[in-house]
Amino acid sequence: MIYQVQIKVMPLKDLLDPQGKAVLGGLHNLGLSGIQDVRVGKNINLQVEAADEAAAVAMATEASKQLLANAVMEYFEVVVL
Amino acid sequence: MIYQVQIKVMPLKDLLDPQGKAVLGGLHNLGLSGIQDVRVGKNINLQVEAADEAAAVAMATEASKQLLANAVMEYFEVVVL
Repeated sequence: MIYQVQIKVMPLKDLLDPQGKAVLGGLHNLGLSGIQDVRVGKNINLQVEAADEAAAVAMATEASKQLLANAVMEYFEVVVL
Repeated sequence: MIYQVQIKVMPLKDLLDPQGKAVLGGLHNLGLSGIQDVRVGKNINLQVEAADEAAAVAMATEASKQLLANAVMEYFEVVVL
């Protein structure tokens, strides 16, 4: 079966996110002053062929660990859509 | 009130996603051959101060249109967490 799997990769909460800070500055310059904090990460959609949902999640987790996320700076979440 | 808002920015479905294709190749080289398609986009988490949820969504939508998403190549989805 084919599963749609979504992986969110975000900078660790304890770390500074310079890209987010830059976006926050840009939004304030546009007059959107209600926005107080911004963090920017990646969103990766996979189409996975697997026997069942658990196998699809396992494959996406393996992909995240090996290639998509850098565990030193980022955490990831896997969701089957 | 403060709302956590998540914005997903993804390449339009009709367009090629060269970054996704490169990731797909990398995953196949790692032996994860069950993965058939990859699309890579951005995930942006905002902390928004607004009177109500609708105002928070409106502010995030405005931010997406003006700065975060390029409507020619990308679509976005706003979700309040």
